This record gives sequence, structure tokens and C-alpha cells, in this order.
Amino acid sequence: MSSMSALPGPAFLFRLAAAAAAESLPRFRQGGSVDNKLENAFDPVTEADRAAERAIRSLIEKEYPDHAILGEEYGLSGGGIHRWVIDPIDGTRAFISGVPVWGTLIGLVVDDVARIGIMHQPFTGERFWADGTSAFYDGPGGGRALKVRPTQRLDEATLFTTSPRLFSGEALARFEKLEASVRMTRFGTDCYAFAMLAAGHADLVVESGLKPYDIVALIPIVEQAGGVITTVSGGRAEEGGEIVAAATAELHAAALQILAD
Amino acid sequence: MSSMSALPGPAFLFRLAAAAAAESLPRFRQGGSVDNKLENAFDPVTEADRAAERAIRSLIEKEYPDHAILGEEYGLSGGGIHRWVIDPIDGTRAFISGVPVWGTLIGLVVDDVARIGIMHQPFTGERFWADGTSAFYDGPGGGRALKVRPTQRLDEATLFTTSPRLFSGEALARFEKLEASVRMTRFGTDCYAFAMLAAGHADLVVESGLKPYDIVALIPIVEQAGGVITTVSGGRAEEGGEIVAAATAELHAAALQILAD
Repeated sequence: MSSMSALPGPAFLFRLAAAAAAESLPRFRQGGSVDNKLENAFDPVTEADRAAERAIRSLIEKEYPDHAILGEEYGLSGGGIHRWVIDPIDGTRAFISGVPVWGTLIGLVVDDVARIGIMHQPFTGERFWADGTSAFYDGPGGGRALKVRPTQRLDEATLFTTSPRLFSGEALARFEKLEASVRMTRFGTDCYAFAMLAAGHADLVVESGLKPYDIVALIPIVEQAGGVITTVSGGRAEEGGEIVAAATAELHAAALQILAD
Repeated sequence: MSSMSALPGPAFLFRLAAAAAAESLPRFRQGGSVDNKLENAFDPVTEADRAAERAIRSLIEKEYPDHAILGEEYGLSGGGIHRWVIDPIDGTRAFISGVPVWGTLIGLVVDDVARIGIMHQPFTGERFWADGTSAFYDGPGGGRALKVRPTQRLDEATLFTTSPRLFSGEALARFEKLEASVRMTRFGTDCYAFAMLAAGHADLVVESGLKPYDIVALIPIVEQAGGVITTVSGGRAEEGGEIVAAATAELHAAALQILAD
């Protein structure tokens, strides 16, 4: 499976997303159990998270037994050039506080590059996905191709980030400089922000401390909708870290000039 | 109409919300026009906002011609002890950036106290309302009564606020102290935060600089779900300002001790 034509099709992504939703949605707003993953930080992991990841893994293992899988809850299994990267519930804080801006993220990396991916929000019924060439949406309002908007200037840009608290020290100072340069900033969006960028409703997303499973599924969605997504130093985003996604190359360069100087 | 029994019923609230949705929803994610309301700040007002308020006003004027109406877009009309207070799209930033956490807010104040209200999110199909006695939800997942959860301690509480940027100076220092005292903080929620509090998914909401139309509809929803909502100095919330809503009286007192000392 080294050629584009051999990539799994959207139907398989939809099956994976549906299997995850069957575990996550019934537990949304039900007050399920919340563990503390880290001793000194509140990092909620619900049963929904774990059950959804098991459901996704099970389908992948059956269909593509030679592919590796990296998941937030159960780590890495397998090896080779194909690696599925999954976050069963991106935005667990949104999930446990009832706000439907979390999503299930499933992406496939081939030869170190994210090729296809899906973001599914089962409460609203929204799916954003990339098939290796183009990116699409379906859900309320009807289906359509995803296309970034042509914003080139920071002072015309809408910036999304999950929380200004993700930055500290020098990175915070740079983020605040960026915030002061854009037209509008919105907080609290997690994966939803990248979907809105791909859909042409926002222009810039900056996140810090991302893991591969927070970003891999979103890379092809942003890129195949016409956007640019890299680390803050301009490299490929597959390994996570501090990530900058932009609607256009011009806007991306302007953001990097502030964030990486 | 001074007795509780004479309050308009939920069916009328639903009609108002549906009329607003017919104007707002078709314009959501369509890239409509955005004006600058204030010269020195970005305060987006879409056509959707204006058309939705006109639709709500028209129905109220027909059904209750002797009631006053205060709306975000068209100000105050009429007088008397009954005053409808409406924000056609609370969370315009969410609206124009494609994120479905905005809502239509419609409340009725009688003798200076908010008695009934509705928050409607037409993209997700969620309605949260209070009928003068009790609060309810319907939408995905099915209908049910709204009930706050029994959280009494700050270190067990989930705190919502739209943005830490709403606070400055001494108020910011107090907010940050509160943020350090709670279990988890989420940003970017607007009216949705109060609905999640009423529904038992969150425990504490703090907002600054609210106008009457940002909060009136939400007061009966929070109160009739069992919660407490006041200004930061403990007074009635109908006039807006810095507002603190909490799941329990104990939690509310603990938050006020930090925010108002």
C-alpha cells in the first residue's frame, strides 16, 4: 500500500468513527467515571475514551492486521510504514463538561506523512474527513467539500486556541503578541478549531503541547482543504508539539514570524 | 398577569425560538456580513442577529402588545412590569467562527425578577428552558428535567468562563485565584456554560461585563434547576455586570469569598 490508490476509503473511516460513537455518545452527559491520569494534573479519562479506542482498534486489527496503531489510551502496537493514530475523544474536558466540541480523531500515517483522517462529532452528527486528495464535511446543513478561506493578513484573521494557559514564559509572550495582532481570538475549541479552519470559518489555530494523536487526523483535513499546518519551527506536524495551522501560506508565515522569532 | 399561573407557557417560548432559528440557522456557516458595532473593538453583528431579533419582537408585539421588550440589537421599547429581554445570538464570536455553542436567549422579567426563559441552540437542536417553576431540556439524547449537581467545594468544581481576557487588574487577579482553586477551567462557552451548569455538567460560571440580554433568560434556567446566580456582590443578576452562577449555595459562597473580597 505505497500508492495513493491503495489508501483505505472514507467508508472505512466512517465505520471506525461509528464504532467509536457507539461507545462514546451513550456516555456523553451521563456523569460517567473520571480518573486522574497524572498524579499532579487533572487529566480526565472516561470509560468512553477507553471503550471507543478499543472499538476502533478492533476494526483496524481485523481489516489491516499488518498496520501499526498508536492510540491515546493504549499506546503503540505493531510497526511498519502504516500507522493509524487515534484519539477516541479529543477534548475530554469538553466531553466531561457536556459541551459538544470534542471529537473522535482517526488518522493514517504512511511513510511518516498523515494521508487520510477523520474528525467525528457524534452528538451534532458532523464528520470532517480527508481521503488522500480532498477534504469533505457532512452533517447538519448538508455535505460539501472543505475549502479554507483566502485570509492572508493577521489583522483580518480569526485565531483559535484551546486555552492561553497552554503557554508559559517566552511562548506565552509570543502568543500574546500574536493575539494582539489578529482580529479575533476564541478559546476552548480543541480539534473543532482545525475543522473550522478547514471549513473556512476560521483562519489560524495555535496549540501547544500536542501529542501525535491530537493532531495526525487533522493534518490531512487541513492540508487537503488547502491550508498549511506545521510545527512552530516549520516542520511536519505529525509528531505534535507546538502547532500552527493557517488558511494560507502568507498567513502561516506571518504567524510563524511572531511565534518562532 | 401578576400571578405565576399567568406566565406565558413553554409553547410560546418555543415559537419565539423557532422564529429566531428560521433567521439565524440558514446564515450559520454561510460567511454572512460582519459589521463593527464599536469603533475600537471587534464586536461582530451579523444580519442573522438583526433578523432573528425582529422575528422575536414581531411575535411578542402581536401576542403581548402591552409588554416591554429589551433586545441587544434594537434596544428598549415599551414599559410596564413585564419586560422581555432577548439576545438573538448570544455568542456571536462562536457564531461567526462556525462553532455551535452560541444560543438564542429569550427571558421574561416580571416586577424586576426573571421568571421564565429559554436558551435555544438550533444547529444541535437543543432547548433549555424554565417555565416559572422548573427547568427542562430537550434535544439529542431526549428530554428531561434540569437539575444542578451537588458540588459544594471549589476543588471539586468545573469552572466555565468565556475568556480570561474579560477580566483585568484586580478582577483578573481574583479570577486567577479562583481558577487556581477549582478542579478544571474551560473557556469559550458563552450562554452554553449556564445551560451546562443547570444540566449538572459543570459547577461554576463566572462572567464579566454582561448586559441584561446576556443573562436574563439564563437566570430562571439556573435558579429553577436548583442553582444560585447573582452579581459578584451577591445581588440579583437581572442587570448583568460581573455574574457568578453556582450549582449550590455553598459553592457560590466559596466563589464569592474569592471574587468579592
